[in-house]
Amino acid sequence: MYPRSDHAELPVADVGRLLLRCPDRPGLVAAVSAFLAEAGANIISLDQHSTEQTGGIFMQRTIFHLPGLPAVRDTLEREFAERVAGRFGMDFKLTEAARPKRVAIMASREDHCLLDLLWRNRRGELNMTVVMVIANHPELADQVRPFDVPFIHVPASKEIREQAEQRQLELLRGNVDLVVLARYMQILTPRFLDEVGVPLINIHHSFLPAFIGAAPYQQAKDRGVKLIGATAHYVTEELDEGPIIEQDVVRVDHRDTVDDLRRMGADVERVVLSRAVRWHCEDRVIRYGNQTVVL
Amino acid sequence: MYPRSDHAELPVADVGRLLLRCPDRPGLVAAVSAFLAEAGANIISLDQHSTEQTGGIFMQRTIFHLPGLPAVRDTLEREFAERVAGRFGMDFKLTEAARPKRVAIMASREDHCLLDLLWRNRRGELNMTVVMVIANHPELADQVRPFDVPFIHVPASKEIREQAEQRQLELLRGNVDLVVLARYMQILTPRFLDEVGVPLINIHHSFLPAFIGAAPYQQAKDRGVKLIGATAHYVTEELDEGPIIEQDVVRVDHRDTVDDLRRMGADVERVVLSRAVRWHCEDRVIRYGNQTVVL
Amino acid sequence: MYPRSDHAELPVADVGRLLLRCPDRPGLVAAVSAFLAEAGANIISLDQHSTEQTGGIFMQRTIFHLPGLPAVRDTLEREFAERVAGRFGMDFKLTEAARPKRVAIMASREDHCLLDLLWRNRRGELNMTVVMVIANHPELADQVRPFDVPFIHVPASKEIREQAEQRQLELLRGNVDLVVLARYMQILTPRFLDEVGVPLINIHHSFLPAFIGAAPYQQAKDRGVKLIGATAHYVTEELDEGPIIEQDVVRVDHRDTVDDLRRMGADVERVVLSRAVRWHCEDRVIRYGNQTVVL
Amino acid sequence: MYPRSDHAELPVADVGRLLLRCPDRPGLVAAVSAFLAEAGANIISLDQHSTEQTGGIFMQRTIFHLPGLPAVRDTLEREFAERVAGRFGMDFKLTEAARPKRVAIMASREDHCLLDLLWRNRRGELNMTVVMVIANHPELADQVRPFDVPFIHVPASKEIREQAEQRQLELLRGNVDLVVLARYMQILTPRFLDEVGVPLINIHHSFLPAFIGAAPYQQAKDRGVKLIGATAHYVTEELDEGPIIEQDVVRVDHRDTVDDLRRMGADVERVVLSRAVRWHCEDRVIRYGNQTVVL
Repeated sequence: MYPRSDHAELPVADVGRLLLRCPDRPGLVAAVSAFLAEAGANIISLDQHSTEQTGGIFMQRTIFHLPGLPAVRDTLEREFAERVAGRFGMDFKLTEAARPKRVAIMASREDHCLLDLLWRNRRGELNMTVVMVIANHPELADQVRPFDVPFIHVPASKEIREQAEQRQLELLRGNVDLVVLARYMQILTPRFLDEVGVPLINIHHSFLPAFIGAAPYQQAKDRGVKLIGATAHYVTEELDEGPIIEQDVVRVDHRDTVDDLRRMGADVERVVLSRAVRWHCEDRVIRYGNQTVVL
Repeated sequence: MYPRSDHAELPVADVGRLLLRCPDRPGLVAAVSAFLAEAGANIISLDQHSTEQTGGIFMQRTIFHLPGLPAVRDTLEREFAERVAGRFGMDFKLTEAARPKRVAIMASREDHCLLDLLWRNRRGELNMTVVMVIANHPELADQVRPFDVPFIHVPASKEIREQAEQRQLELLRGNVDLVVLARYMQILTPRFLDEVGVPLINIHHSFLPAFIGAAPYQQAKDRGVKLIGATAHYVTEELDEGPIIEQDVVRVDHRDTVDDLRRMGADVERVVLSRAVRWHCEDRVIRYGNQTVVL
Repeated sequence: MYPRSDHAELPVADVGRLLLRCPDRPGLVAAVSAFLAEAGANIISLDQHSTEQTGGIFMQRTIFHLPGLPAVRDTLEREFAERVAGRFGMDFKLTEAARPKRVAIMASREDHCLLDLLWRNRRGELNMTVVMVIANHPELADQVRPFDVPFIHVPASKEIREQAEQRQLELLRGNVDLVVLARYMQILTPRFLDEVGVPLINIHHSFLPAFIGAAPYQQAKDRGVKLIGATAHYVTEELDEGPIIEQDVVRVDHRDTVDDLRRMGADVERVVLSRAVRWHCEDRVIRYGNQTVVL
Repeated sequence: MYPRSDHAELPVADVGRLLLRCPDRPGLVAAVSAFLAEAGANIISLDQHSTEQTGGIFMQRTIFHLPGLPAVRDTLEREFAERVAGRFGMDFKLTEAARPKRVAIMASREDHCLLDLLWRNRRGELNMTVVMVIANHPELADQVRPFDVPFIHVPASKEIREQAEQRQLELLRGNVDLVVLARYMQILTPRFLDEVGVPLINIHHSFLPAFIGAAPYQQAKDRGVKLIGATAHYVTEELDEGPIIEQDVVRVDHRDTVDDLRRMGADVERVVLSRAVRWHCEDRVIRYGNQTVVL
């Protein structure tokens, strides 16, 4: 149903991931494959997508096995840039599967998304290292402690937004590869997004039809919707309008109280967010325009 | 997962359905049950819903078995009105399961919703008699013919809306209990809705987030949505804003072309519409405010 | 989609639940409703089911609101037995929503089902009090501790089954209303089931088709199944063959490794088990033959 | 969620599909890609799968665009065999997207699978030409007629199996690329499977747990299952045990009568079968051992 974790059994130290994006033209798959074959790498899996049949954007994710990868990784990257990427105008990223992403989770008072990420990661599902939890409220500290992850309380509110973001940036800059907003209920400024320098993933509820304004679950109840859902997306300056990574819904009916809707919404939120984070950490998500391709 | 068809094995001639709605207060279930027991009826199933714990609206659907129902139906209705409904301020409806709803289907050029309804009805799934198909285009005539249902071509467009609706009303008035808009692509005027005198059910596509304007599937493609859906609702003067009867979604991804999205959207539309029509024809749907309760 | 939590907003101290089962005959709903109405109770919700149209088994779950219920509960129970249950040959159970079930969870080494139950319960989703966790391995102690639930290590294996069950029975008898086997990997003897005197709920994986014997996920992989699932059921002497409470599946494909299947199986197991436990604790599940009715 | 139809907008005459399977080794993707690039073909999509990390079976489906494909197809096939397939020990198949598979549908009395295939094909969803419907009962003739497909009545039963299969083989041999058993209720002999010389796809119901013997829906009802499903598979001599192509389930509950289960089972059967047929006709399904890989 969904993109999957990579072959878990591989000697992961020698597994590399090559993501690339470029204008489409004939010979791209062949050029990349030939380069890897010459380098002694065996392609484990290869997924590609073209946005148009001709003249569109080409994207590819290649997982390969190369004995001794950690030692030759920098050379491989440089040679790929010179011999392939330059010729085809490629943006590319070469990563090692053995190096999990360093992730900060930001939260407020709600625990469901935060704990689900910590718990799944402890089970080895998420291919990330959670280097810190930053919360603008202190309540969740006790729940984070058993996971051996630093819990850092940075008070934040509309009034002290600038100081809060300054403190957050000091904590984050250079230390993380990804920030996950696990029901973090403060708005982040464009300046913050710009300076933090890494992608941010957010989760929010979704309904058909959409409801604007406060108390969305009450509105959904009043309208008698039969489905409620959640959307995980990259954060951009357009609030809640960034590229969608994953969505899902759950069926509800008239017997569900507003509290039931909230509980079921929380369940779908944590599932959707954990999928989005997993795919990002496995280098599966390529951004393109205001959308994503999950390979 | 969904409300179900009634006990198919019953001698259906003796099965009645009692739908009611009234201000909530203690003793409602008991009063109705006692009335039915005294009348010699056995309750086969009973579903009720209260919108609030106290002071809300109470709704109930009761299926009962009463030998000789066709002969005593009118008496039963009158006595229920006098002895129960009046006392509690109830709106109610008493129907016989053996009398299928008379239904007109209105269509344009697309066949998927129309044919699915005709086909399911021939299989005995929908508890309705399709008395006519009215289309504003002639193309679907050949496909309707094998179902032995009159196909009536009433040209309609923005320019001749008044004449078209006049002709449609002549066909419908007094002849049908329900009108189903199976991808009928013309707007119906408030006057039409008023004069037709029976409920109308419509189907339309739905997305998270919603897209306004033309070419919604193209917009959904551009935004990279991961789910597309459909909503069946009663028609009110607020276009596409009437009480929702049913919704569902299907998962899509970046490999799906706009044509794929349309095809998958068609599939979910026909499933959602057929559920809504079945529930309506089984007297399961109670309207309340701008929502429905499906019992 | 599923049976739901009861109206959370009610002054729960005054909410009662009446479950009953008896041979079907006319007048049952009326008799129960009239009894409750006379007692001053307002029916909040009522669900019933008949296994046959006539001559079958009738089951009903009634939620009612009766001011001062805790004081009159015993009287109500006695009078119901005398005036209604005796007359109709009913088995019945009268419970107070304000008294959560006392639950023991038994586990081994796997944490997913155990932690999900503890976490959902802390969120207030499950209407139970977890009075102890009994594990035959010590590893999960640290994970249970933050939930403030006693973790009791009772070593158990084939060789020491009798002593282990004796120790478990000493802990359980009289102290719990339900035992949940959250991936408890020891067989329980018929004697244990008999002496523990309360229902047990178990969870296990399920496939289409079924696979007998060891390493079921490997077998599922080899057979190329497209769905894997889980079944929650009451424990009877027939291993894994007791009355089914809930089932669900998740889609898999050829890219999923055996480890992926296990991870996805774990996810569906914890969801299915938590639903089954919630429904049981809300007195929704009526056993009948080797099946259940979830009202 | 599922493998998708190919880019519908392409000038389909120039689109080719290359399926291959061989022992895994480094350089396979590169060799195939290079061959296609040299031939002037542009890879539109490429999916591959390895059953093991090393030493397993490698499978690949490549969709390419090559101007003038119909004229050079035979040359291309010969050169690929000489220059690539031979070297790597590949089984391969080269097809043109513009040539739909020729399909015979075999049916008995039930219409749901047969009509769904005919209807979807008329909508252009299935990429096949239905060259005949063979039924061992005459009842469905009228329903097939509007689709302009020959309906051939070949009486068949246990007693006249040999003659029936002889007649069926005369009709099928050389005329079809695929036989779909759309609820064809006769057993086919190993001799028939051998002589017909093309793959057969079958559909049957599936339950968790599985039920052996007659009246499976009644058994499922008695056991109180919460899910019923369907499995589409290639036909082998092991009855109902061939490689699975697709499976799905639908949720049921205690209110569903055996008739409801049958109706819902029919719905899931037709959906599952149509997916399996579509994937086969798009050359997406590679058989491997007793399983399939759907690329």
